[in-house]
Amino acid sequence: MAVLAGLWAWGGLADEGLWLVNQPPRQLLRQRYQFELTDAWLATLQKASVRFGPGGGSGSFVSQDGLLISNHHIGSDAIQKLSTPTKNYLRDGFYARTLAEELRCPDVEVNVLESIEDVTAQVNAAVPPGANAAAAFAARRKAIAALEKQSLEQTGLRSEVVTLWQGGAYHLYRYKRYTDVRLVFAPEQQIAFFGGDPDNFEFPRHDLDICLFRVYENGRPARVPYFLRVAPGGVQEGELVFVLGHPARTSRLLTVAELEALRDVQLPFRLAVLKQFEVALANWSARHPENARRAREELFDVQNARKAWDGRLAGLLDPELFEAKRRAEADFKARLAGLPQGAAALAAYDRIAAATKQLAAQAVRYALLESGYGFRCMSFNLARTLLRAAEELPKPDGERLREFTDAARPSLELHLFSPAPIYPDLETVTLADSLTLLASQLGAANPLLQRVLAGQSPRQRAAQLIQQTRVRDLEFRRKLYQGGAAAVAEAADPMIELARVVDPEARALRKVADEQNEVRQQAYALLAQARHQLMGAETYPDATSTLRLSFGAVRGYSEEGRPVPAFTTFGALFERNRQMQNQPPFDLPPRWLKGRRRLNSATPLNFVSTCDITGGNSGSPVVNRAGEFVGIIFDGNLASLPWEYAYSDAQGRAIAVDVRAILEALARLYGAEGLVRELRQGHRSG
Amino acid sequence: MAVLAGLWAWGGLADEGLWLVNQPPRQLLRQRYQFELTDAWLATLQKASVRFGPGGGSGSFVSQDGLLISNHHIGSDAIQKLSTPTKNYLRDGFYARTLAEELRCPDVEVNVLESIEDVTAQVNAAVPPGANAAAAFAARRKAIAALEKQSLEQTGLRSEVVTLWQGGAYHLYRYKRYTDVRLVFAPEQQIAFFGGDPDNFEFPRHDLDICLFRVYENGRPARVPYFLRVAPGGVQEGELVFVLGHPARTSRLLTVAELEALRDVQLPFRLAVLKQFEVALANWSARHPENARRAREELFDVQNARKAWDGRLAGLLDPELFEAKRRAEADFKARLAGLPQGAAALAAYDRIAAATKQLAAQAVRYALLESGYGFRCMSFNLARTLLRAAEELPKPDGERLREFTDAARPSLELHLFSPAPIYPDLETVTLADSLTLLASQLGAANPLLQRVLAGQSPRQRAAQLIQQTRVRDLEFRRKLYQGGAAAVAEAADPMIELARVVDPEARALRKVADEQNEVRQQAYALLAQARHQLMGAETYPDATSTLRLSFGAVRGYSEEGRPVPAFTTFGALFERNRQMQNQPPFDLPPRWLKGRRRLNSATPLNFVSTCDITGGNSGSPVVNRAGEFVGIIFDGNLASLPWEYAYSDAQGRAIAVDVRAILEALARLYGAEGLVRELRQGHRSG
Repeated sequence: MAVLAGLWAWGGLADEGLWLVNQPPRQLLRQRYQFELTDAWLATLQKASVRFGPGGGSGSFVSQDGLLISNHHIGSDAIQKLSTPTKNYLRDGFYARTLAEELRCPDVEVNVLESIEDVTAQVNAAVPPGANAAAAFAARRKAIAALEKQSLEQTGLRSEVVTLWQGGAYHLYRYKRYTDVRLVFAPEQQIAFFGGDPDNFEFPRHDLDICLFRVYENGRPARVPYFLRVAPGGVQEGELVFVLGHPARTSRLLTVAELEALRDVQLPFRLAVLKQFEVALANWSARHPENARRAREELFDVQNARKAWDGRLAGLLDPELFEAKRRAEADFKARLAGLPQGAAALAAYDRIAAATKQLAAQAVRYALLESGYGFRCMSFNLARTLLRAAEELPKPDGERLREFTDAARPSLELHLFSPAPIYPDLETVTLADSLTLLASQLGAANPLLQRVLAGQSPRQRAAQLIQQTRVRDLEFRRKLYQGGAAAVAEAADPMIELARVVDPEARALRKVADEQNEVRQQAYALLAQARHQLMGAETYPDATSTLRLSFGAVRGYSEEGRPVPAFTTFGALFERNRQMQNQPPFDLPPRWLKGRRRLNSATPLNFVSTCDITGGNSGSPVVNRAGEFVGIIFDGNLASLPWEYAYSDAQGRAIAVDVRAILEALARLYGAEGLVRELRQGHRSG
Repeated sequence: MAVLAGLWAWGGLADEGLWLVNQPPRQLLRQRYQFELTDAWLATLQKASVRFGPGGGSGSFVSQDGLLISNHHIGSDAIQKLSTPTKNYLRDGFYARTLAEELRCPDVEVNVLESIEDVTAQVNAAVPPGANAAAAFAARRKAIAALEKQSLEQTGLRSEVVTLWQGGAYHLYRYKRYTDVRLVFAPEQQIAFFGGDPDNFEFPRHDLDICLFRVYENGRPARVPYFLRVAPGGVQEGELVFVLGHPARTSRLLTVAELEALRDVQLPFRLAVLKQFEVALANWSARHPENARRAREELFDVQNARKAWDGRLAGLLDPELFEAKRRAEADFKARLAGLPQGAAALAAYDRIAAATKQLAAQAVRYALLESGYGFRCMSFNLARTLLRAAEELPKPDGERLREFTDAARPSLELHLFSPAPIYPDLETVTLADSLTLLASQLGAANPLLQRVLAGQSPRQRAAQLIQQTRVRDLEFRRKLYQGGAAAVAEAADPMIELARVVDPEARALRKVADEQNEVRQQAYALLAQARHQLMGAETYPDATSTLRLSFGAVRGYSEEGRPVPAFTTFGALFERNRQMQNQPPFDLPPRWLKGRRRLNSATPLNFVSTCDITGGNSGSPVVNRAGEFVGIIFDGNLASLPWEYAYSDAQGRAIAVDVRAILEALARLYGAEGLVRELRQGHRSG
């Protein structure tokens, strides 16, 4: 790790790493923890782990009958969609005592990683030497689509080419996909997310952030070949633990030039947008309890993202972190000079800087028009998907936008045909707010903006569009998707026509981004090669929403001189509730207030470890040396947020729910003895 | 009004106008309402009205013994400062049954307008013909300071030259100043601000937004010569009413070029800053009830401003309003062509556009460095005041920054030597947040930013500065203020030294702003002359935080086809509380829940009228034809927010607390019979 320290150093490095499961840190684990990682051990973990779609998040099987545990905040979108004004499962919780009571989620899929294949050579071979960025991007996109399609056809498995090391390698990931996912158990959101946004990313913490699903095949519980056995005794302070999950994205290998653009351009804009949106949602929610119910999930997502990005920006504004990055890059450049390909690698830095400059220059317009920040509502999202599907699907697979390739279509259709409710009043609020943002950013005199607003104010226009569009009608969407461009044009739906007005510029921005990212990828590939040559193979790439192994120890830390112990307890939960006068978001569900005496106040509720995680790891199982389930990741603390750019175990920690709290609460508060039995036995009873 | 319609039209105009008390709309009132405005009637209203300092807001005397009524949200800053963790008057309310129990507020002053003198000729005569902007600004500043100083010395009254019509006229306002202001009564904030931010600027509304003070002179209740008698019977729908108050600022006479800059540059930035700050304060407040108590006033101010500016920006983004502005300007320009000075007036538009461009180009840096958005905390504010006082006070009066002139010193010192508590934890949060804003806006590589941060992250730097500065110590401030530049330098206080680092650029920005505003003023003076010539004298200038008369009718309106009646009642208050499940901010104080049956559910609580108001009017008395107090303004509805730029009575309304609710609640819920007696009699008993 001393070698890595030269590159990524920011504080200590000890337990750093989001390791590929096909390149695990065997040597490191042997040296630091005298742990022999075996293929069988890792294979079980891999195939017991799942990735949630379409929103992301992790989970794991905990019984051979398809029982799946994840976080409440991963399942909450589904729970919200299963709820109605009269059956509020988010607020009141849910428990299916029988299979018949399990509720099918409208648009949840889970994916299990079956195999990985290195396709770097094939992908790179497809790009003609000396091709310009546009041609190189087109050739690479085509090659990737072909590989994915061929794999899907040959194996029937969802197939996805993953770009690693920012372009240094391409691996083909194949997933078994489950789309019949049913809700089995959810606690009240108020205990899953006790402390709400104020305590989010904080520690000490007191959340039972879990929910349980079951995957079905052919209308019956799936028999899954791999699952985790629970360790009812949990873990002890200092113990080695592992996390298997799907960290979404880190930016640790980016050049200083890229980090500067993030720090000075992209992150400030993203945060301003998030905060504007948060204020709009919070304000509307506060006007009526039903508003609050409708907006709750979206508001949580926005607050969560805002707090995460605030913490990451704080990391980039920390001169200690940034200077470490600068020094590491300077050191690496100095060592590059000694390599035969040194000059080429050094030149790659300049190409990355030039591409970064172009991307930063269009970042705001890209976010508004292509990422859709200017049109924030489900209706626009659906409308543009219909518009683009009609344009993209007739093209050869390899020439389509990535989200419309044959390999991606199942997820696309799951999303497009979700029967989940869409609330016109909430849609109007978010669209009006984002059209105001668009006007503020482009200036009211901008010709595109004027076409978007069509002579109305943002509020009027939003109300009109949401009122008149038909895309909330599932049958309408099916008809247009099947009918293609002619049907879409004939429908003359105002929201789709709005998407059409925006699309030329959105696509132009996307084209520049794709090409410049191709330039970046080629340049990063050179840096990755040089890095492997200088530092050996036992390194890991930035997170890519794919399965990774982390390891670390259960360990407290100290903050402003005060020790922060590794575990919290049920007792501490009730104390925090008392201190905060049972006021939202620190109120407890009636079941908990009444059932307090039935719980052992010393039972561990949450714990922290030095495992390296980030967003997307939510729901990841925490396992011990024996591979047994001892807890479930649901958050990182504030000091872990800068891990986006550099790991440090000085104060940064991953936060998990302790398996002991899960078992005790299920048994003593929820009367869920059947579930507890299944968890302890690893299969359903009788 | 037909003539005005050509200039300001946006919807109907009927009751438009923020009229100068020395140029009241006599003719208009006669024509529209057959009301004969007499000098005696107006003089009583004028001298019974007060302006609050330093924060602004209005109020009126309601007894000859100095009893003063205003809004709770005007008094709440003082109430907060009188509160402690154990005596929470904001939460629990306050009532002094005897004079001895009345609590002196640490830094409240109230001002009564005694006289107005037109000094336009003197001010303009001081500016040499053909002087450049810098010289003209300096000459005008000197002349104004001299007029103010001379008036103060001659009359002993606080004297303030007010710029009207954006430079078309200069009037000298003289105020009697009371600085011994004591709290007499405040209801619980929860009923004063029932519905909190979600219901703010909304109607129907249910707030008892009042509090009562008493002004003292020489340690005894002041005997005030003018006060309003209350009308216990209140008003009826359709009745003519008047509002006397201190609207802070409107922008109705700005050119289209200025409005465009506001719409596309200043307002979006201001809103982004407000929302960032709101999120920071709300997040910190939610972590602990004591945090919430400390930040409550600041959070309210920020949310209030955010909602107001959101509504104003929506007005500017309404093409109907903006096109009306554009047409009015085109019409006016066409009519200018017929005047002898037409060419000069038309050229003035170009000079305003050029100045606007310069001001807009530096608007963000100005806001950050001179307005202090980059250093948001009391400590910085005090530190810079000390630094600048040491530099400014030795200069001749006429050459100082405006806030350091002799005429302004009493208010400056009231603020500087306020013993109100300053909370280091809150200071650290707000400073860290605003330093992050500064870094994001300037870019981390900016040399000034690097000097500001001194090698630390925004959070570290904020914590260090707040910990090490001594400016929170009142005696320290006194010492430095008296000791001048030498004492300030010797103290080497880190916050003052930070202010010193920022000051050269801040002052440079201020200089450009002052000069360009001088250019604008000269140009607007030409437009004002032309306007008076074309339209006669019965017009009003934009609001300037000085006393204005508005009039209108008590009248409901309709929204999305549904009628919104003019009055709400106690009954409707309890119904809204029930609908919102008594959850904050819709919870009611225990006194109200318990005392519900003692109130008449039909008693009017709040009412709306078409009176033209804006921010600063809060606390203004509403009086009937007889000049009797029938209510007190505390808000405008959402549709009134665009009145910043153009009045319309289509839906826009001023919102007031009804005198009947005040009297009934005081008597039946608060046991404040003594106060009720004083209000009904116009003097204290016994």
